[in-house]
Amino acid sequence: MPLAEPPRGGRDPGFAEIEKQFILQPRWLVPIEPAGAVLTQHAVVVRAGLIEAVLPAAEAAARFAGYERVELPQHALIPGLVNAHTHAAMTLMRGLADDLPLMSWLEEHIWPAEKLHVSREFVRDGTLAACAEMLRGGITCFNDMYFFPDAALEAALAARMRSVHGIIVIEFPSAYAADAADYLRKGLELRDRYGDEPLASFCLAPHAPYTVADATFRRVATLAAELDIPVHVHVHETEHEIERSLAEHGVRPLERLQRLNLVTPNLIAVHAVHLTREEIALLAHHGASVAHCPSSNLKLASGFAPIAKLAAAGVNIALGTDGAASNNRLDMFQEMRTAALLAKGVAADARAMPAQAALRAATLGAAQALGLGKVAGSIAAGKAADLTAVALRGVELAPCYDVVSHLVYAAGREHVTDVWVAGEAQLRGGELLNDAFAPLEKRLQLWQNSLGGLAGH
Amino acid sequence: MPLAEPPRGGRDPGFAEIEKQFILQPRWLVPIEPAGAVLTQHAVVVRAGLIEAVLPAAEAAARFAGYERVELPQHALIPGLVNAHTHAAMTLMRGLADDLPLMSWLEEHIWPAEKLHVSREFVRDGTLAACAEMLRGGITCFNDMYFFPDAALEAALAARMRSVHGIIVIEFPSAYAADAADYLRKGLELRDRYGDEPLASFCLAPHAPYTVADATFRRVATLAAELDIPVHVHVHETEHEIERSLAEHGVRPLERLQRLNLVTPNLIAVHAVHLTREEIALLAHHGASVAHCPSSNLKLASGFAPIAKLAAAGVNIALGTDGAASNNRLDMFQEMRTAALLAKGVAADARAMPAQAALRAATLGAAQALGLGKVAGSIAAGKAADLTAVALRGVELAPCYDVVSHLVYAAGREHVTDVWVAGEAQLRGGELLNDAFAPLEKRLQLWQNSLGGLAGH
Repeated sequence: MPLAEPPRGGRDPGFAEIEKQFILQPRWLVPIEPAGAVLTQHAVVVRAGLIEAVLPAAEAAARFAGYERVELPQHALIPGLVNAHTHAAMTLMRGLADDLPLMSWLEEHIWPAEKLHVSREFVRDGTLAACAEMLRGGITCFNDMYFFPDAALEAALAARMRSVHGIIVIEFPSAYAADAADYLRKGLELRDRYGDEPLASFCLAPHAPYTVADATFRRVATLAAELDIPVHVHVHETEHEIERSLAEHGVRPLERLQRLNLVTPNLIAVHAVHLTREEIALLAHHGASVAHCPSSNLKLASGFAPIAKLAAAGVNIALGTDGAASNNRLDMFQEMRTAALLAKGVAADARAMPAQAALRAATLGAAQALGLGKVAGSIAAGKAADLTAVALRGVELAPCYDVVSHLVYAAGREHVTDVWVAGEAQLRGGELLNDAFAPLEKRLQLWQNSLGGLAGH
Repeated sequence: MPLAEPPRGGRDPGFAEIEKQFILQPRWLVPIEPAGAVLTQHAVVVRAGLIEAVLPAAEAAARFAGYERVELPQHALIPGLVNAHTHAAMTLMRGLADDLPLMSWLEEHIWPAEKLHVSREFVRDGTLAACAEMLRGGITCFNDMYFFPDAALEAALAARMRSVHGIIVIEFPSAYAADAADYLRKGLELRDRYGDEPLASFCLAPHAPYTVADATFRRVATLAAELDIPVHVHVHETEHEIERSLAEHGVRPLERLQRLNLVTPNLIAVHAVHLTREEIALLAHHGASVAHCPSSNLKLASGFAPIAKLAAAGVNIALGTDGAASNNRLDMFQEMRTAALLAKGVAADARAMPAQAALRAATLGAAQALGLGKVAGSIAAGKAADLTAVALRGVELAPCYDVVSHLVYAAGREHVTDVWVAGEAQLRGGELLNDAFAPLEKRLQLWQNSLGGLAGH
């Protein structure tokens, strides 16, 4: 986290902002660590992009007298939300095709649209739109998997969000890369170029067991071990995927990944909907994480992830929105609520995934999955000042007996007022501060005209 | 709908507003009838609280030249949402006890809180808060079941919302009534007193099969037939309810209700989570409605209602929020999204409950269930001008290929800007217009202090 180093790309690094020293004084502070804590009359001290201290407000005022003080009198201050799985650029396909079975959705709508439209420009504009949506919804970090990760990275840096970029690999050619080796080479080059970028990091992103060959998975496993970075893969999303693996490989996908040395603490098993008891134990034993995307799993009718069982086994659970084409929101408040509610229904136990667990999965759980457990996901001295203020006011949030219950069950992203990423204010009073988003409205209209023809609207 | 008659209770009837004539000219008009229609360059003409015409905008301008014109240039205009099942006053217990199994939730938290606190004042304040929340979220009509329906009615009239009040009956005494006969007598008296109130109507509301005796159900069936009003009853909410009915009555609750002549077109089967194929056919055969409350069913881990099967059988489906203690939002946008997504997961079919069906269940389906199918639930000449404008703008709703998809999957109640009930503006630019809500903030704080002690916070 060398925050003193200016970001690449000729943009204004905003040092004045980054080096600012300030004290945030919220009504409620929800640090995530220690688990379950909700502090009042506490302050968060920020300096040079980092959290310098978390301490009683009176003490903060005395010890850090020269610091600017920001009052958040009706707000809960939480760690910036971390979106553990998305395809950010797919915002451009939001609502293009809904209420369709997975294969018709992919084959008749999404893939043709991608084939016609996906370009570096598409990914840059779509990712920038995703960043605007996510920041407005209190998300400070996202983990992306899509074509042209270079364009996604460029957009994320322009948006000044923290981001993890998947070194995507898939066995079919696209406008971005010719074959598996080409995908990997381009992704690794990108990582070399941006490896010391403070706001960006990388993971390996083999698309899915049904689109990646053994040889490629082996190469991914070797790279993951060498580079010690996460491996982000769709796995056990549908019954169909499992049947196909049994037919083609004689084993279920997770067993195949295990044989290929991919079930490790670096694994982010995205979706992980269909799991046997043994597979849950396997994930737990190896310290793998699950990126749970409840809205997407419901919308595509993929099935119900066994969240209570995963939690009981000790598997780290992260939440993700998936892409806007299968959600259709990049909204971690919605995912927290849906995850907490759905886990209860699936477990037939109202105690499953309590509000605290949902909030943890959307913050520290996700940060840990992404290899950012020391950087983000909780409000603790030494971590980056990635912070989100949620105004708990208005008749929708009254009365208020339990702040964390409100954050998960009653509040929405519309209650987010202020967001800081590495100490830099990106949202204030609900308004985005970054000029990089100004061209978006016009660009989105152009993409709508372009893709709308395809959708037949 | 004698709109010329002033409402009771000494409040300002707001005739100037009610008798206003105006033309609403939205970017998109979603009338619900005919099914699937999304009209552009169309207008809705309102006069004396009713929809006078729905026609092309150019024609409206020519034919209704003297009418005020309200431009809604970025908006979808939809029928006011209809909340088919709530316990409005339970807003005062929002988040008081979460993540608990049903019986512990009821016996250790909700019932003790009700025993200590529920009074006419509690119900009036809680219902008024619910009305504020619902109007802000585009809901113009709700169906209520709670103690002191007189106080709920008073609040709904003060809020100038359309409301249906359950003539509640339950076999245990409360601060409101001594026994089943007393409950019924008080409810019927209320109906006699307010029977000609244009914004209010009534249904019979026997609480549930496990809290109402056969004799009382028989009396309810007789009254329902005599008065031709809906019967609103929790039924087949949990497995436990069904087991208990089998033990105590030898039959499942629906069969018991059928034997007691309650399965008719007037039946609103609330929850209806656990249904056999025969029970679905029974509901369809008798033209009964189901009030589906997906958030509540998940939160209390009650189970998954078979919505796709009910729809395939032709059962009329309405959506409801249930009370704020088991949701924790009175938010029909949330219920539409959750219902549409969950139906797909449960049916293992992404085509289940498409966006159009969810929107219908939140409008016309609910209005029909409540006996208001000729009054509300669609935008058609002669119906009441209960209308909601949703601003489809901002990066969260871009691009826009399909308006109804956005309304259900991407938009939220925060996008509601304007609401009219019987032609009277109640929300403008997201702000409530009615002074009746002014005392709420202070009153809610008092209730929070009072109930918060019990919750141990």
